[in-house]
Amino acid sequence: MFLLGAVMGNILVIGGDGFCGWPTALHLSNLGHEVTIVDNLSRRAIADELGAQSLTPIASIEDRIAAWQRVSGHQLGFVNLDVAQDYDGLAAVLNLLKPDTVIHFGEQRAAPYSMKGPRQKRYTVDNNLNGTHNLLVAIAELKLDIHVVHLGTMGVYGYDGDGLEIPEGYLDVKVETPDGRLLPRSILYPTNPGSVYHMTKSLDQLLFQFYAKNDQIRITDLHQGIVWGTQTDETRLDDALINRFDYDGDYGTVLNRFLIEAAIGYPLTVHGTGGQTRAFINIQDTVRCIALAVANPPERGERVRVRNQMTETHRVRDLAALVAKITGARVDRVQNPRLEAAENELFVSNRSFIALGLEPITLSNGLLAETIEISQRFADRVDRSKIPAASLWRQDMPEAASHTIKKAS
Amino acid sequence: MFLLGAVMGNILVIGGDGFCGWPTALHLSNLGHEVTIVDNLSRRAIADELGAQSLTPIASIEDRIAAWQRVSGHQLGFVNLDVAQDYDGLAAVLNLLKPDTVIHFGEQRAAPYSMKGPRQKRYTVDNNLNGTHNLLVAIAELKLDIHVVHLGTMGVYGYDGDGLEIPEGYLDVKVETPDGRLLPRSILYPTNPGSVYHMTKSLDQLLFQFYAKNDQIRITDLHQGIVWGTQTDETRLDDALINRFDYDGDYGTVLNRFLIEAAIGYPLTVHGTGGQTRAFINIQDTVRCIALAVANPPERGERVRVRNQMTETHRVRDLAALVAKITGARVDRVQNPRLEAAENELFVSNRSFIALGLEPITLSNGLLAETIEISQRFADRVDRSKIPAASLWRQDMPEAASHTIKKAS
Ligand SMILES: NC(=O)c1ccc[n+]([C@@H]2O[C@H](COP(=O)([O-])OP(=O)(O)OC[C@H]3O[C@@H](n4cnc5c(N)ncnc54)[C@H](O)[C@@H]3O)[C@@H](O)[C@H]2O)c1
Ligand SMILES: NC(=O)c1ccc[n+]([C@@H]2O[C@H](COP(=O)([O-])OP(=O)(O)OC[C@H]3O[C@@H](n4cnc5c(N)ncnc54)[C@H](O)[C@@H]3O)[C@@H](O)[C@H]2O)c1
Repeated sequence: MFLLGAVMGNILVIGGDGFCGWPTALHLSNLGHEVTIVDNLSRRAIADELGAQSLTPIASIEDRIAAWQRVSGHQLGFVNLDVAQDYDGLAAVLNLLKPDTVIHFGEQRAAPYSMKGPRQKRYTVDNNLNGTHNLLVAIAELKLDIHVVHLGTMGVYGYDGDGLEIPEGYLDVKVETPDGRLLPRSILYPTNPGSVYHMTKSLDQLLFQFYAKNDQIRITDLHQGIVWGTQTDETRLDDALINRFDYDGDYGTVLNRFLIEAAIGYPLTVHGTGGQTRAFINIQDTVRCIALAVANPPERGERVRVRNQMTETHRVRDLAALVAKITGARVDRVQNPRLEAAENELFVSNRSFIALGLEPITLSNGLLAETIEISQRFADRVDRSKIPAASLWRQDMPEAASHTIKKAS
Repeated sequence: MFLLGAVMGNILVIGGDGFCGWPTALHLSNLGHEVTIVDNLSRRAIADELGAQSLTPIASIEDRIAAWQRVSGHQLGFVNLDVAQDYDGLAAVLNLLKPDTVIHFGEQRAAPYSMKGPRQKRYTVDNNLNGTHNLLVAIAELKLDIHVVHLGTMGVYGYDGDGLEIPEGYLDVKVETPDGRLLPRSILYPTNPGSVYHMTKSLDQLLFQFYAKNDQIRITDLHQGIVWGTQTDETRLDDALINRFDYDGDYGTVLNRFLIEAAIGYPLTVHGTGGQTRAFINIQDTVRCIALAVANPPERGERVRVRNQMTETHRVRDLAALVAKITGARVDRVQNPRLEAAENELFVSNRSFIALGLEPITLSNGLLAETIEISQRFADRVDRSKIPAASLWRQDMPEAASHTIKKAS
């Protein structure tokens, strides 16, 4: 299971205790890379704050690392460090390890949490921006030639693409001159984020643009779709390696929440008409894509390489129908707590990963296994009170969405 | 001296102790507005940190306010508060005063300072982003209908406009469809900032875009050119009202530095070929523009109103020639400590302020008076050691620029 021709390197995984970061760390370790995780365990702290734990019983980071050593013989490094707050610590780690690649997952990633209230809005901006900025400043300061691989989101594009295919990061446009000529320009796709969380990824993009230009840092920004699925080849190797599965109203993504609603016999709560179209990718494909991105860095001096890390698009109501078909659940429409277009189309280019050899796992093939492996198996661990999506996008919105589940219980 | 037809309001001026903020506060107070200044006096602290004081002897904020009351009979409020760090304090002030307008000058504004080292890069991003974000979050949270007037910079556009006129914030482009049609789109002008400082203004733009859309906050973003001149009609009324004049390598803008070099008999230090073209505006026009912007807010739900606040463009070497002509100084070329295009053209639309009645003060008319009123008058206060521009844009650049003055002295 080695990447053909790849040189094994020294990799730092910021946010490596999280949902995407943990299986990525294992996958890269399995491929033969030296992997060190940096994480401040803030995701676990937020789970405690929300009283909403992973459906799957996740082990402590120490137990996870010990289990991985047991089953694979590979050692993972771990540093408990807040990259947004502890610049000196981060710079010391970089200077000590001099990694070839830093994969940066270490941000607050839930849109509903980022809209919950002033504290969460401010935390999300402060944490995500300063973390990314500290990393770039430290690399520039230490004059290290590190490839930064960052997890962005499809959400930076917004969902109003005029029915045109969304390109990988850059849009070719034409600007008209006074004498009627059309000048071509390639620009960062004009961003239109729909939440404070998504906005931070738009902000990150500008940090990357600047540091790629000014300090010639090599950067890959992966605009990822919504990740579904829980386990990967590596996390399945031991119970203590199990990946997290969030289903609460803040961190649970749409598919996870449908699966849990189905598993406990609730109707699937579709926001509004369910006409929102979103991009998806399986967690196993996520870790593969990241390995491919690591193996294919941009050149020094090149502009930021953006890749769309998604494999298929679905309308929310079609997802609900799919889950309903597999599980026999009912579908219910509830008031949308988000400000977003009721219906949108979405066409996305993912040519760059396909060209590198990615063979996508499709939802229609993988969903049944996921249901049995995770949501049905752990259904007795569900805390029903955590399912409602209670974060409103604006102060003056009705709270209907959050009542549905309570009423039914 | 009242604005015809304007309704006098309750205005908060964040950064009202600074170079642009102070004369603006006086001008608006003179026009009959109730003005409260919020400032953490960080600019004075940075002057101490750099050991580089304003050429003009500026009074303490308390003495400034007392002097203004003496000469005008108007009371100015003052709150010493860090808008980036003290969200609760900011929210309390907003809730107490419920201002009609908040003018936001409260950011770290020197490009060289923002490039000085890791601490300054990080401070600039943290201070500018969190300050702006706190303001927007508080307004949304308190459900206040406040018009936010923010000072941005021409620098967000970058200086590679293909020779086309830079529009006011939004660029009309065409996107080609697969079947060859050209779809028109109006997008935020693709940003290309040249320093960490300028980058923070590009980041601010995305915060504004989001909060204008999600919370319907009314926002005007003024993309200002380099401000020249020192005094305004109001700051001239008393010695204790005098405005600051920075000439050090970090905070001194190009024209101020030429004037000081001339006043003390040094050659004018032109970076590189001096082919950089920049936009300028006189401080008296700045305060007028802001009064006009305050009187002409966008509607609720409208996109961010961007106005270019500049009145003329000049090449740096032409500026040097102009100062040399007035003062008899020599011109010297030094190594450029910045990473920027050696030569660029710049055409900028400023139709929106001209349409509102602005009658620009031109450099060719005002420069001689400025020279006599400020740089020659206070020449004995110059600290020569502070003139060199010592902040390098990248770690590996030669430090030639910073040696020139030392050699000559
Ligand atoms: N999960 C998805 O569907 C999805 C989709 C698109 C993009 N992404 C992006 O992928 C990345 C990882 O997402 P995830 O689902 O694994 O989220 P997660 O919350 O499970 O993991 C993020 C990890 O980063 C850590 N972290 C956060 N701030 C930190 C800081 N300041 N210092 C150190 N560690 C910090 C957290 O403790 C956590 O372990 C995020 O950037 C997210 O925006 C995720
Ligand atoms: N001076 C120029 O040529 C120029 C050109 C374009 C844009 N601008 C913009 O205009 C604004 C004002 O510029 P200036 O030249 O007056 O700068 P300045 O440094 O003289 O004034 C800024 C003021 O804001 C205050 N401040 C900074 N951070 C603060 C915080 N967190 N909380 C409270 N107060 C804070 C400082 O103490 C200072 O008094 C800035 O945003 C700047 O970017 C200035």
